[in-house]
Amino acid sequence: MGRVTARRPVLRITPEGQIRRPDTLAVEEPLEIRLDGRPLTVTMRTPGHDVELAHGFLLAEGIIGHRDDVLAVRYCNGVDDSGANTYNVLDVALADDVVVPDGAGARNFVTSSACGVCGKESLDQVRTRTRFPLPADGPAVTVDALTSMPDALRERQKIFDTTGGLHAAGLFTPDGVLLAVREDVGRHNAVDKVLGWALTERRVPLGDTVLIVSGRASFELAQKAVMAGVPMLGAVSAPSSLAVDLAADAGLTLVGFLRGGTMNVYTGADRIKSGG
Amino acid sequence: MGRVTARRPVLRITPEGQIRRPDTLAVEEPLEIRLDGRPLTVTMRTPGHDVELAHGFLLAEGIIGHRDDVLAVRYCNGVDDSGANTYNVLDVALADDVVVPDGAGARNFVTSSACGVCGKESLDQVRTRTRFPLPADGPAVTVDALTSMPDALRERQKIFDTTGGLHAAGLFTPDGVLLAVREDVGRHNAVDKVLGWALTERRVPLGDTVLIVSGRASFELAQKAVMAGVPMLGAVSAPSSLAVDLAADAGLTLVGFLRGGTMNVYTGADRIKSGG
Repeated sequence: MGRVTARRPVLRITPEGQIRRPDTLAVEEPLEIRLDGRPLTVTMRTPGHDVELAHGFLLAEGIIGHRDDVLAVRYCNGVDDSGANTYNVLDVALADDVVVPDGAGARNFVTSSACGVCGKESLDQVRTRTRFPLPADGPAVTVDALTSMPDALRERQKIFDTTGGLHAAGLFTPDGVLLAVREDVGRHNAVDKVLGWALTERRVPLGDTVLIVSGRASFELAQKAVMAGVPMLGAVSAPSSLAVDLAADAGLTLVGFLRGGTMNVYTGADRIKSGG
Repeated sequence: MGRVTARRPVLRITPEGQIRRPDTLAVEEPLEIRLDGRPLTVTMRTPGHDVELAHGFLLAEGIIGHRDDVLAVRYCNGVDDSGANTYNVLDVALADDVVVPDGAGARNFVTSSACGVCGKESLDQVRTRTRFPLPADGPAVTVDALTSMPDALRERQKIFDTTGGLHAAGLFTPDGVLLAVREDVGRHNAVDKVLGWALTERRVPLGDTVLIVSGRASFELAQKAVMAGVPMLGAVSAPSSLAVDLAADAGLTLVGFLRGGTMNVYTGADRIKSGG
């Protein structure tokens, strides 16, 4: 890859003095996703796993639900000033029977024509759009397995270690085996990449997995979990009110402040079992 | 207000046992911004300071540059299931001479019709769209003043203290006086709110201020600083590569890892003076 991190000069100032040195940064570049040649969205992402990102984004938007809904993904032949391909435009060819809903691609939320946009409408839209209702019971995850997951994620956050600048998302089995981890400057991209990986591996719906994110749990991240059929979302930091409301509405187990052997279970506590 | 935080029941699990108790969460709800009745964007934000958020968003998008570019801002009369106004739709009436550019409202980036979308194009667009070129020199900010700013911001982060779930943005004078601080579940919203505050106070362009953010510095946040004429952006955590590139391109001083008396200066170090 070589494009995941970049070196830039920095002046480091401390009480002991100043030093000029190179610093390693997380790369952020725009990625435009097109559907059959038509621009759909632009996201600022860390290059790498772009095809997975596109799959995950389309899955979370409700546009695709199966690997076979995508016929082909290719980089557009765009070039920068030096004539090199930017690898920043992906064109997705959809299968003939895939219908793209109106308003698809608007990040976070499909704009409503009603005047009374509210949290309730957001919840309704996710529930009506998901094609993978969550299982009423299961999977069972032990407290020990759940508390081990953030550490396992952290161990695999290679780029964060060098840049301090990336969010991570990891997909685990209920007994704590890490299936895949992805990093990105955008937390939504990290989740899209790991869910897109699962879709291309024909693992969606992800009814027997736990999704762990390195930061906070927003409505958008809970929405992505629900749209992929993931029954449990764990976040190292705080959830928002609407993330909790969506989780309650959709039957998602939502865990926050998952760190140091402790956690806050906001919804779906019946899936969590004591002990190891 | 009452809508900035919300209480939800939580099951707290620790090695010592389990307890059910209420937890205080940061509220996240959609806000739709309309221009003269036409939907422009929806952002997931923490309610409060919505009018400032709208001003800041429109400023950062290059749609407005002065308080008088906005004739009026009013909440739409949308109601939820119980008949109460949601206060989640804002309609902005623009002055007659304000021209809304094509593609306005796309978060982060105006979609290009060219195939070779790249970081360079993003930089070019910001440079060509800003109406407030940054001053070639000044303001001078001492190391002591700069290192004091994150602590001053943290002291004013009231909602974070109760929820752990909010980003903050603060605007300071060069000698470290905090002018305004805003919090939000979305870091871009926190910045929009504080820049919108400045616009409504007729303080834009903000050539004699420092903008401090509680988290990382992305391209989008650097872009917002430049569009408001802010010459210095300090972040408690890491910047991205494109944020640094934009800062270098636009003449913005970009400081990262600003914590505990130390900092990394990526660009524009000439504005930072030793001592107190």
